[in-house]
Order: sequence, then C-alpha cells, then structure tokens
Amino acid sequence: MIKAKIIGAGGYGGVGITELLLGHPEAKINALVDVENPGTPISKIYPHLTGFCDMTIVDPSDTKANEPVDVVFMATPDGVGMKLAPAELSKGAKVIDYSGDFRFNSKEDYAEYARRIGRNPEHASADLLSQSVYGLAELHRKEISKKTNIVGNPGCFAVSCILGLSPAIRNGLIDKDTIICDCKTGVSGAGKKPSPTFHYPARYEQMNAYKLAGHQHVCEIERELGKQADTDVKITFTAQVIPLCRGIMSTLYGTLSKKMTELQVLDVYRKFYKNDVFVRIFESTAPIGSPHVRGTNYCNLVVSVDVRTNRLRVVSYIDNLVKGQAGSALQNMNLLFGMPETNGLDKPGIYP
Amino acid sequence: MIKAKIIGAGGYGGVGITELLLGHPEAKINALVDVENPGTPISKIYPHLTGFCDMTIVDPSDTKANEPVDVVFMATPDGVGMKLAPAELSKGAKVIDYSGDFRFNSKEDYAEYARRIGRNPEHASADLLSQSVYGLAELHRKEISKKTNIVGNPGCFAVSCILGLSPAIRNGLIDKDTIICDCKTGVSGAGKKPSPTFHYPARYEQMNAYKLAGHQHVCEIERELGKQADTDVKITFTAQVIPLCRGIMSTLYGTLSKKMTELQVLDVYRKFYKNDVFVRIFESTAPIGSPHVRGTNYCNLVVSVDVRTNRLRVVSYIDNLVKGQAGSALQNMNLLFGMPETNGLDKPGIYP
Amino acid sequence: MIKAKIIGAGGYGGVGITELLLGHPEAKINALVDVENPGTPISKIYPHLTGFCDMTIVDPSDTKANEPVDVVFMATPDGVGMKLAPAELSKGAKVIDYSGDFRFNSKEDYAEYARRIGRNPEHASADLLSQSVYGLAELHRKEISKKTNIVGNPGCFAVSCILGLSPAIRNGLIDKDTIICDCKTGVSGAGKKPSPTFHYPARYEQMNAYKLAGHQHVCEIERELGKQADTDVKITFTAQVIPLCRGIMSTLYGTLSKKMTELQVLDVYRKFYKNDVFVRIFESTAPIGSPHVRGTNYCNLVVSVDVRTNRLRVVSYIDNLVKGQAGSALQNMNLLFGMPETNGLDKPGIYP
Amino acid sequence: MIKAKIIGAGGYGGVGITELLLGHPEAKINALVDVENPGTPISKIYPHLTGFCDMTIVDPSDTKANEPVDVVFMATPDGVGMKLAPAELSKGAKVIDYSGDFRFNSKEDYAEYARRIGRNPEHASADLLSQSVYGLAELHRKEISKKTNIVGNPGCFAVSCILGLSPAIRNGLIDKDTIICDCKTGVSGAGKKPSPTFHYPARYEQMNAYKLAGHQHVCEIERELGKQADTDVKITFTAQVIPLCRGIMSTLYGTLSKKMTELQVLDVYRKFYKNDVFVRIFESTAPIGSPHVRGTNYCNLVVSVDVRTNRLRVVSYIDNLVKGQAGSALQNMNLLFGMPETNGLDKPGIYP
Repeated sequence: MIKAKIIGAGGYGGVGITELLLGHPEAKINALVDVENPGTPISKIYPHLTGFCDMTIVDPSDTKANEPVDVVFMATPDGVGMKLAPAELSKGAKVIDYSGDFRFNSKEDYAEYARRIGRNPEHASADLLSQSVYGLAELHRKEISKKTNIVGNPGCFAVSCILGLSPAIRNGLIDKDTIICDCKTGVSGAGKKPSPTFHYPARYEQMNAYKLAGHQHVCEIERELGKQADTDVKITFTAQVIPLCRGIMSTLYGTLSKKMTELQVLDVYRKFYKNDVFVRIFESTAPIGSPHVRGTNYCNLVVSVDVRTNRLRVVSYIDNLVKGQAGSALQNMNLLFGMPETNGLDKPGIYP
Repeated sequence: MIKAKIIGAGGYGGVGITELLLGHPEAKINALVDVENPGTPISKIYPHLTGFCDMTIVDPSDTKANEPVDVVFMATPDGVGMKLAPAELSKGAKVIDYSGDFRFNSKEDYAEYARRIGRNPEHASADLLSQSVYGLAELHRKEISKKTNIVGNPGCFAVSCILGLSPAIRNGLIDKDTIICDCKTGVSGAGKKPSPTFHYPARYEQMNAYKLAGHQHVCEIERELGKQADTDVKITFTAQVIPLCRGIMSTLYGTLSKKMTELQVLDVYRKFYKNDVFVRIFESTAPIGSPHVRGTNYCNLVVSVDVRTNRLRVVSYIDNLVKGQAGSALQNMNLLFGMPETNGLDKPGIYP
Repeated sequence: MIKAKIIGAGGYGGVGITELLLGHPEAKINALVDVENPGTPISKIYPHLTGFCDMTIVDPSDTKANEPVDVVFMATPDGVGMKLAPAELSKGAKVIDYSGDFRFNSKEDYAEYARRIGRNPEHASADLLSQSVYGLAELHRKEISKKTNIVGNPGCFAVSCILGLSPAIRNGLIDKDTIICDCKTGVSGAGKKPSPTFHYPARYEQMNAYKLAGHQHVCEIERELGKQADTDVKITFTAQVIPLCRGIMSTLYGTLSKKMTELQVLDVYRKFYKNDVFVRIFESTAPIGSPHVRGTNYCNLVVSVDVRTNRLRVVSYIDNLVKGQAGSALQNMNLLFGMPETNGLDKPGIYP
Repeated sequence: MIKAKIIGAGGYGGVGITELLLGHPEAKINALVDVENPGTPISKIYPHLTGFCDMTIVDPSDTKANEPVDVVFMATPDGVGMKLAPAELSKGAKVIDYSGDFRFNSKEDYAEYARRIGRNPEHASADLLSQSVYGLAELHRKEISKKTNIVGNPGCFAVSCILGLSPAIRNGLIDKDTIICDCKTGVSGAGKKPSPTFHYPARYEQMNAYKLAGHQHVCEIERELGKQADTDVKITFTAQVIPLCRGIMSTLYGTLSKKMTELQVLDVYRKFYKNDVFVRIFESTAPIGSPHVRGTNYCNLVVSVDVRTNRLRVVSYIDNLVKGQAGSALQNMNLLFGMPETNGLDKPGIYP
C-alpha cells in the first residue's frame, strides 16, 4: 500500500483527498497534518467521516507528522509547499502541491505569478522548479511518471479553461488573439475560511464578478495554451462567483480561423481526447450542467459554433474540488506510481 | 387616478406590476384578468397580498375585464398582446406589452424574431407596429409620451445588454465585430410554470448554458445597438441559468478601438447616463453584485478595461423581474402619462 | 420630522431600520453610528442604498454621533444599550434597544437571562429597568406611548412563539405544561459577522438544531406566556437553522384542555387579534410559507388541531429581520410618537 | 452476480438504486424499466451516468423487461408494486417495493393507509401481505433473509422517526402519549415530477408545513412504535419542507417517564444500536447537521434531555433518498441474499 500524508488536512482540499484516499484500493493515509486543531480527530471536524477516518490531526512538529511516507499531498496555501518540499523529497516522498508553488518551471515565471497574488516573487526552493511537472494529466501524462517527484497541481479555473481550449488551439481552429474565458465558480472554491463575501446571507442570491483587475490563474492558462499554440497567447479572463457550492462553468470564446461546423469541431475535440477517460465531449443540444460532474473527476465539454459571428464557444464544466483540486491530485498520484489513472476515481457521483 | 388593467395577472409578470401599482401614488388597479383561476382572489394565489389586494381574478370574457381603463399591462406570452391590443386601443387605453409582439416596428423584423421562437411569422396586428415604441426609457424616453399608445416592453436580457453597451457603441469605443454578451439569469426569468429544468432538486446547485443555437433577445439587442452604431451590429450571445431567483448578470466584452483607461471609459458612461436615475455606474473595484439591484428598477454597470488585451468589459446587473420586466413597464406608464419617471419606483430594495 | 439615530448602523439590524426609515413619512435619519467603518458612506457597505442614503458612518465619539435626536435605535449586541441609554435619555431621546438589555423589568429577571448567554448578570443601568417596556406591540400597545422612554425590542424567536401561543393560553385552550416550540430560523438571524457555521459551503444544504442545552429567548417567552396564563409557564424550545436567508417558522404544540375544532380555535385567534393589522390568521389548508411574510412586518399564523391526539398546533411565520427586529422597532417608534402603527410598514413585500 | 431489475428507473428512486448497484461488488443491473422514455439511454436523462451506465430504458412490455432476474426494485408509486409483484415472484425474483404497497401485513392495516392517501383501500394482492416484511433492517433484520421474498421498503419520514424513538420506547423511557414528531424534509422527497410547490422560484427561501390534516407515514410509525411499546401508540406528526435537496431532520419529543440524564439516555441508545453500523449516536453538543449523512445510508441521532421540562428530545438525520429510500433498499437486498449488510453502502459521502 502507498502511504500518504496530507498537509493542510483540515481544509476543503484536505478533506477532499482524504475522502478519495479512503476509497482507493492501493493507498492509505499515514498522517493528517495541520497547524489548526492538532489533537482533534478529523471526524470531529468533519463528522461525515465518523467510523471511516477517526485519525487525529497532528501538528507539523509531531513525530507522526514526520514519518517517512510515499507521497505527500500539500493541501496548503501558496508559499507553504515550497518550504516543506525539500525535506519531504529528501526522505524519499513524492510531492503533490495544490498551490501555485510548483506550477511553473522557472524563477521568472513564478515571480510573475507571485506578483499577481501579492506575494514575495522569490521562490524558496527555486532549484526544484525545473523538475516539477504541471499536473494536468490530460496534457502532461507522459511527464508524470515514476521518475517524477514534484507535481504542481493545477488551479481549478485553469483546468476548465485549458481542457476546454486546447484542442481548438492545438489544431489552429481559433484566432489566438480573440480568446475570452468567462468563468463562474461555486463558493467552495474560496476554501473553508469564513469571510464577509461568502457569509451565507451575503452570498445566497448573489452572483458577481470579482478580481476584475486580473486573476492569478491567467498565468498558467496562457502558459499552457501557449504550448499548444507554439507561440504566445493572451486571454481575457473573468472570474465570477455563483451561489452554489461545487462547480465551475467556464464559457470559452474564440473566433474561428475559418468556417467550421459544430460537427467538424466535435470531431477535432473527440480525437484530441480519445484516450482521456475523464473528459467527455457533448454536442450543443445536450442538456449538460454543473451537477453532471459534481463529486467526480470529470470535465464535460459542450461544443457549439455561433455561425452568425463565426465564433467557437465551448462550455467547460468541472467540480472545482475534484477535477479542479483533489481529484486531479489523486489522478496524478496514480500516474506517479504507475497505477491505472482511474484508481479511486471511477465514480459517477450522485444525482440530484 | 389612472385606472390600470393587468392581463395575465396570475404570472410573475402580473404579480410584479400588481405589487408596484399598489405602491404607486397616482394609479390604481381596475381589473386583474387571467384565463387561469378566474373567480379566485389574487391573494389566495399570492398570499403575501392578503389585505393589500384581495381583488378577484376575472376571465377575459367577464364584464369587469372589459371595462374601459387608461392603461393595459399585457403580462402575457408572445402572440396574445397582438390579438388583444386593437380592442383596447379602440376603447382609449394605452397598451404596454411584455412580450415581443410590439418590440419591432416592421413586419419583417417581427417575422425574424418570430422565427427564432418558432412562432407564426405573420403579425396579427401588423398595422400597429409602426406606432409602437421600444420601451427602454433610457434610450427612447422622448418617444414614450402622452401621444404614444403602444409600448413593447423590452426583454430582460436585452435591457442588461443594451444599457451596458450603448455608451461604448454610441461613442465608438469598441470594435462592433468583437461584441460578446455572456449573460446569466436567475430562474424566475423562466416564469411561473413548473418544468423539469426548473424543478428545485434539478436546479439547486445547477448552472448551465442553454439555447446555444440562438436566443430570441439577440434580435432586439442587435437592432438597438445598431441604432447606436448607425450601422449593423452582430453579437455572440450566451444565455445561462444560475441557481438564484432574481437577477441578471451580463458580462459584456468588446475590443477597444483605441487604448483607453478605465477612468476615461467611466467618464463616457457617466456622461451618457447623466440624466438616467435608474442607471448607476461603478468602477471595477466596487463590490457590486446582483443583490444590490434586487427588487428594484436599477441597472448597475461595473466598468473595467483589460489593458493586457485592450478589451472593454462591462458587467451589467438588473433584477430580471423589475428593470427587466414590471419595473420598466411602470417606468413606461409614468412616461406615457407625463408623470415623474420614478413614481412608485424610487425604492432601494432590502438587504440581505 | 422625527430625528432618528442608529447605533450599530453597519449590521443587519442597522441597515434594516435604515431601509424602513427611508420610507417613513414622518421620520428622518440624523446619524449612523458604528465602531466599525467610521468615515465610510453606508452606501459603500450596502451598495443598494446608493443614491438613497449616502450618509457617512460616524464613530460614537464623533460630534455628529452626539447630536440630540428624538429617538435612538440601538441595533447593538447585548451589553451596549444598557451603557449608552442613560446619556441618550438625559438628552431627551427615546431609546429602542434590540438586545436583551431592556426586555426585563427587574434585576433578577435580567440576571437569569444574562447567565443563559454567559454575560455578567449585573445590569449596568438597573434603575432604568422598571420603566422599560417589552416592545411586542400586539400585547403591550397601551404601555408603548408618548410617556414611554425605553423599549426593549423583542427577540425574533420570541415574537413568533408569543404571538402564536398567546391566544390559546389567554383563553385556557391548552395545558400549560405541554408546550413545545419547535423553531426554525433563516441564517440572517445570526447577523452579519462571518463564522464557520454560516459560511456558504457549510450552510447550503445544511439544516441542524443548535443550542440544545437552552436558548436565551426562552426567558422572555415564558415570562410573556406566564402573563397571559396568570401563572408560571415552562416550555421546551428547540432552535434550528435552515438554509435560507430570511424567515422564522415556529411550529408550536400544546395539548388541548378540552376537545375543540379547528374552526373554534380559529375563532378564538381571530378575536384575540381583531385589532392587530400585522397578525394574519389562516386555516390549516392555506398554502402559507415563509415567503409570504418576507420583507414585511407581518406574522402569519396557521392554526390546526390534531384531533387524533387532541393537540393544538400553530405554525407561526415571521421575517426575523422585520417583525423579528427592525419592523417591530419601527412599529414601536410609531407608538412612542403617537403615530399610526403602520407608518412606513404597510407594504406586502415582493414575490417570488 | 445477482441480476437486478429496476422498475421506475427514470425517477429519483430509480436513479438512486442504479447508482448504488453500479458500485456493488456482487450485483449488476439487468434491465431498467419505465413507462416514460422507453428507448432512451438512461445516461441521456441522467448525464452523470455517461460511461457508467448507458443502458436503454425499456417499456414494461419489452422482452428485456420480462427476463427473469434475482431481484426487482419497484421504484414506483403506490399501487404499481401490488399489481406487478405476483408475476415477478412466480418467476423466482425477490421483490423490494418502495411504496406503501407492502409495508403492512393485513388488508385492514393497508386499507387505513390507503384511505389516508386517497387510494382504493382494497389491496390487489392481499394474499401476499402476510409474507411481506417491513424493510427497516435495524428492527427487522432477522426477518429479512434468504427465505423472504417481499420487502416493503419504509417511508423516508418513517425511517427517521422510528429509528429515533425506538430505543426510548422499547426501554420505557418516555410516556407514549406525549410523542411529537416535528419533521423537515428536503425537496427531493417529493420526487422528480415538477409541480408549482417545488418550482425553484417558489421553493428557494420557502419553508412551510404541509398536509397538516395528516401524513400517511404516521400509519407505519405508529405500528412500529407500537411493536416496541407492546401497546398502541399515537403520535402528533408535522411534515415540513425545507429549501434544500437531500435530507430529513426529525426533531422528536417525548416526556420522560422518570428523570434521566443525557448520559443515561445515550447509554440506552448506544446499547440498542450496538450492532447497527448505519446508526450513529451523538451527544447534544456534537455539531451534527444534515450534510453529515448526505449521500450515505447513515442515520445520525443526536440525543438531548430538556431537564427543565423533563423531556427527551432526539434529532434524527437521514438522507431521504438513501437511508430513506434506495440505500435501505440495497441494505435489504444484501440481507435477502445473505451478504454483508454494508455491501455497496460503506461510503462516507462527500463534504462540503
């Protein structure tokens, strides 16, 4: 059995990977680490785990927190993983980091990202950046292997945009200067910490755009789309919060380089993802919405062409906490240990 | 006192104008007409009206339904107003119609709209079209006067898009071939009739795009923006439903013709709407969301410029049932009778 | 015009009375006072007020905050009003306090309440208690007059339970040892301050009971019901939070002293409240729910008799922020100044 | 592998058992039967099943619908199972019926139930009633065995009330004439069919009591509690709908026969359910709510004693669609085939 440690176990990202590991056939949790609530059983904080995982949360300084493991999930905010990774790597663990700390391969790229979120642009473990891999398995599967030791788990918005646009860009379908990503997220994307913006009375019946001056996920989206385009790509990106808990719906626009029918575009998309079990392609009339990926690792892409204006429009749906976070992390773990990518993830979710 | 009749009194559009008329200083309801629930007091259907309006709903064939009045609100689906309008006009009433029946001034324009919604393209009162006025007061105030007899109340999405883009287009700020309207509506926009799509368990936690093949409001948006541009305008329009009850958030994009700062654009918008009490302009950092217009006749516009891609982005918020429907209708009534535009509408709403 | 000051203007209780005063024909706001956000226009915090009330919040030490006024609304937590009241009274103002500070008329009763909420049982202005009046107008209308200077505004749960049970108890319909109040509140009852319990992702789809060991509103409910019974009354009370914003639904049970039909009970209730415009009585088959009082000062009571077990069951609906807070406060203000009780409150709300 | 057939596959009860069977180690679906949408793949109706179950729905008259199977889930309304059961039994299948058709063991008991719901009191297969078993495994485990052929799956409210009260009644803790069940359900309990009451705009922000004249689940609750009490029991029962999708919270009251502490009651409850993995007992201070059973087969019971009034109060939480429906059905299937009761059900659910 693969022994896993979760740092930041008390947050939504932590409980998400805990739930998934409990259902994984070849992995088990060795330690739940968090600076908050050490000494408390995780099932006191998340009572749905009662009887499934009553393990006590330990402080990072605790002996249990420092036992060698096979894989460490850093379900931590920006800036934590870069400090803790070297010690974990030296003990032989593989590291999967949820934050932006390892999504970039150069000091310069990281610095640009860090500036966007108002953090110190200097990376605490800059020497590790060259060996980290961007953990979007559909595009980087080959690089995520037993030889890989660090994975930078992708941002939730980024997953939805990159998966939704890559086939079009790779195949030159759209003019790369016309890309607009209009993204809507459920509230759980903001994490577990209460704030005035996500207080129930302030959020129910409230939809709004935010961070209009620029969202940090733009960096990795443009980098990844640029790789598909083999040239620079700049996008307009709008983040919006919607009064639901789980789900991202990104509506992605780009002007078609030449006239194409929806069927032709569907064909391109289906070919692009023919080996990707977690991406499902639908035609424009399919009645797809956010619940159809809720609680799952799937990305549902609905493809349409606005023939009047010659624009491609792809609506990309994911669960921000699964394919957008813990699910991608587990998918990456599977690849890192040479296991089937679907281990612990082949579930349809529940409805309604 | 102005005597008003409401046809289609039992729907959301009917109860909306009923609520507003109850608070109007110079109008009173003469009859509530509906084919459903005749003989039932409106307060049995909408118990919040108990004690405020216990008037009985009457069938269209009822004597009460046919008494002459000063103004008729047709809170009815497409195809009804065009049949009933001539008789009302002949009795001296002014007609405000909620549907698309009187939003167009020519048979040809109507036919195009009708085809979009799968209706008979022939208009039943085509001779009246030339005298109807499009009831978006901010753009057509001068045409909505005591001399006017027919107003085609605008579509809810249309109100948000037209108000959000007109200043930019009128002033040549954006390239008219680059316009994208990404629109999100609350569920009440679909009306009172239950359907699988809007059943609570199917809708809670569900956001989705719909009618990707084309939404009927595109016709009036392009017509109105075309008037501002003095040339044809074609837009890409996406309709999306969000799990909240009241509110439209339209995120509107267009490439700037030349570089402009947010402050410069704000200045253009503020000048454009300097005499429009129901339009409020905010800078990109203002914490505006759908609740801030809920239950009111306001349109809140948040203006931002994406300098990296040289795009204008305006986020336009309205309450789909007020500024998007009954509120605009009352604003139009005020203008039709030469009263202050704000009569019965100068309320901030409640929060949270 | 009556000059009003609001202390605690930035909370939900503050904005509630602000909204109501803006629509009141004979009152105007003189100052908005709060320790948080002094110097900020209230409309920056509550953007729906933009253009309606852009008054700047002032610190309690500010000159503006200390100008003499006619009435002070203390929209403040327990313990604040009792300290500030003497100074206000000495300047000639009447005081309406939202907290438990002035809901009791003796040191002993206050002490019991204070212990329940873990506060110092000693009252800071104990000498004022004898002149304060419990501000539930339906039961204490005569005591709330021009001669009255202090009103203790009732607790939200208490309003729903006392109005729902008083007719039955006053008339000896139920056995006073069998009373159970099963109460459900929307989330806004917890106020504006964010907390883990009311964080949107933790609260959506969550209903739960809380404070099972005892809720502080029990004190005033038992006191008021005891007055109606002319003897001591003890109740079992359960507080529950429901994932909606506004509304209380209290289901109230008591064993009938003798067999009665629903019609007979309805008759008792209608007589009891025949002069109370804000209480509406409905039979058990009426389709009443929380939206029918939302945004209004009404209490809707649905009366039923379980003939199989000989129990009375009354379902009592109020808006916790209106009849349960700011609305009752304004109703009390109207009485304190000899105005019609409905001034600024005769509105049906909006639906849906 | 056990071959299962689902009749009524297109409803919420059908998709619920489908989801569970897909994750069951020893069962597989042989046919999905429904009168609506025959010929349509289930994954077109429930797109989250795409790739997991794309089986086509067949009409009851279809050959596929009539193949012999090991177990038939009748996810059908009252009156259907009683007609279809004989044919299934004759082909050797075991029958698990969701409706009230097989919850009673005598014609007389059924007739009383049928009258409550306005149905023909005559049972179409009255001769089968004596062999059917009430499918609440915690109380009837021994009767649900390989020898059993018909199970009447319990009503959702009934599960929550019976599990919550049985330990107290069995052990004589409470006076059986004082029982009140104040029950709240999420909207999915009403099924998939749209109706005005459960239309999103009518239901969001709406909580209300309904069927105040009497709910049909009272019959089975009183019957089962009567068995525990060895005498007749009559309860007062209130059904209430809450704006959430999944979950039942039943607050159960009874006067203690003699003084007991919470700890003593907890002890009784823990002993009663010591062999029941799906019932979890919590003390009154545990922060338990409906999400902690969502998507799972668990019943969480929070026990408290109101010492002031000497009342026991148990708050009982289940997921109405799992422990209240499909989960209990699968638990029953496991017992019918001599498998571990937890097969396919040992999952904690997801949070938030």
